[in-house]
Amino acid sequence: MSEIRQDPATKEWVILASNRVKRPHDFGKKQQMRSLPPYQPSCPFCPGNEYLSPEEILRYPAEEGSSWRIRVINNKYPALVLQGSPQQSGEAGFFTKMNGVGAHDVIVETPVHNRFIPLMEDQEVEELLTVYRERYNQLSRDPRVKVITIFKNHGGGAGTSLIHPHSQLVATPVVSAELRRQFEVAIAHYDETGRCLYQDIIDHELRAGERIVMDTEGFVVFHPFASRMPFETWVVPKKGQASFGNVPTKDLASLAQVLRITLLKLYLSLNDPDFNYVIHTAPVGDESKDYYLWHIRIVPRLTSIAGFEIGSGMYINAAFPEETAEFIRNFKV
Amino acid sequence: MSEIRQDPATKEWVILASNRVKRPHDFGKKQQMRSLPPYQPSCPFCPGNEYLSPEEILRYPAEEGSSWRIRVINNKYPALVLQGSPQQSGEAGFFTKMNGVGAHDVIVETPVHNRFIPLMEDQEVEELLTVYRERYNQLSRDPRVKVITIFKNHGGGAGTSLIHPHSQLVATPVVSAELRRQFEVAIAHYDETGRCLYQDIIDHELRAGERIVMDTEGFVVFHPFASRMPFETWVVPKKGQASFGNVPTKDLASLAQVLRITLLKLYLSLNDPDFNYVIHTAPVGDESKDYYLWHIRIVPRLTSIAGFEIGSGMYINAAFPEETAEFIRNFKV
Repeated sequence: MSEIRQDPATKEWVILASNRVKRPHDFGKKQQMRSLPPYQPSCPFCPGNEYLSPEEILRYPAEEGSSWRIRVINNKYPALVLQGSPQQSGEAGFFTKMNGVGAHDVIVETPVHNRFIPLMEDQEVEELLTVYRERYNQLSRDPRVKVITIFKNHGGGAGTSLIHPHSQLVATPVVSAELRRQFEVAIAHYDETGRCLYQDIIDHELRAGERIVMDTEGFVVFHPFASRMPFETWVVPKKGQASFGNVPTKDLASLAQVLRITLLKLYLSLNDPDFNYVIHTAPVGDESKDYYLWHIRIVPRLTSIAGFEIGSGMYINAAFPEETAEFIRNFKV
Repeated sequence: MSEIRQDPATKEWVILASNRVKRPHDFGKKQQMRSLPPYQPSCPFCPGNEYLSPEEILRYPAEEGSSWRIRVINNKYPALVLQGSPQQSGEAGFFTKMNGVGAHDVIVETPVHNRFIPLMEDQEVEELLTVYRERYNQLSRDPRVKVITIFKNHGGGAGTSLIHPHSQLVATPVVSAELRRQFEVAIAHYDETGRCLYQDIIDHELRAGERIVMDTEGFVVFHPFASRMPFETWVVPKKGQASFGNVPTKDLASLAQVLRITLLKLYLSLNDPDFNYVIHTAPVGDESKDYYLWHIRIVPRLTSIAGFEIGSGMYINAAFPEETAEFIRNFKV
């Protein structure tokens, strides 16, 4: 029988309805491992084609003349641009709008066309996380910026047509209603209990044990109780900060290793699935609040978001996280 | 420049960022019109294969022995089943769950494999809507049922592998947090103004005019101000009821015609795009409330839901509804 579970972070319900035909390993079967060259002449992110990209914001290492390992550039079709003022106008709740003020970066993660994060050295992933944090902290100083979302679309099913390893950053002048609610849930929990909701979530998950994928000194990796999609994975710091902008440098190496191993397990066990990840973080200005923990949510795109999900906001998940977590936990890399 | 707009129904923000490379008609260009036979021997929904489907709930016409025009059957892999009691258990906000009590129907819309709604006679669409309403009213009498969502997934990009025309119905024992919020927004508007929010939305849209696709005696069809995806289309009754279960029979014929023409315009102008539609309706028990209007939201699946959308709940829409509405309004069928 299926189960309806409530996500403690959103209070949203999820229907878990394994059809029992599909076992965890079956989700990877229809995938075919991508076969890609390390260099693709027509790829706008491959070395030699830098002139094709919009303005470069930063590169790593920064030294002029040395070859880059990571580049941050403006998105060619930016959703938002850091120009002008995000003044609201409208008619008492109708047609409320503002200018598209914000930022939309592309982070080219490596010059190597087929060097996905799971195939990198830990050091390279650490450099990428360092660049994320640097760009986060540059943008968070702009008073127009309210939330900075760093995310990755890997593969066509995850919303990108460019396979060369890249991430994106969107800085918005508003807090989305969806995130606002998640912060409200966390604040209510803090006011009631004096504890951080996300700290309590990982404590509960660690105690339950059955959805844990990895438990390291600094981070817990698990498939959450109310996973919306099969193999949804959260990476949460054990003693973290509200804001990703405040991650201490000493934590980035272990985060890099945990993230790489987590993605490598998904990569090998599910045959390089399309996936998204998103760094969830407190709004700009709330960096020192105790009610939140920044964390990373990874969502493999193995099933579709269909009419029921779009209409109701509730997801039907075809796999139980206990089963997918056990499969990934036991998958050796 | 892009714009950030607020949906008056959800209070969620949407980023509208047309890249100006893609004009409205370009969204249909990559589509290839499906070419399908009227009968497909291996299709479980084609006549002769009724024995393959789970229990039949009702058929139309109901007469024994006559050939069916519409069948309602149980979903083969039901997300929810109407058995037992939806008792909640959990630990103070953590691991809250209940049994998967509810219903999950499949409505086979026609015996003809390739007879999509846009290609039907109005009379056939009216029969389908009548069956929707009948099944709605059967289920709404069960005290365990709180919300009934009727929806359609058309094509692989919309979440179905079966192309034979069919819809689905999911009855849940909870109101999703997402829908709860939309009702709260509507209630707050009603308490402040004494008016129905959805009535006010169509009044505002009619006054603005530029996003209207069709304006008939009974229904308004438009691309909403804060559309989340290109060509998102709402069909709203001008003097409607809170619940789809209460649509008067005399309105079903005109709804059928408006829905068919709306879908035909999308079908022809965008080359049979994958799409979802969802009938939004008040929760069971709130049928007589004045704060809500049932309506239909159609969402062509021309672009992806990527990491930013999944993470933030905000959508980046690559087309302005003023442009898509003008294109569809002027497209002759």
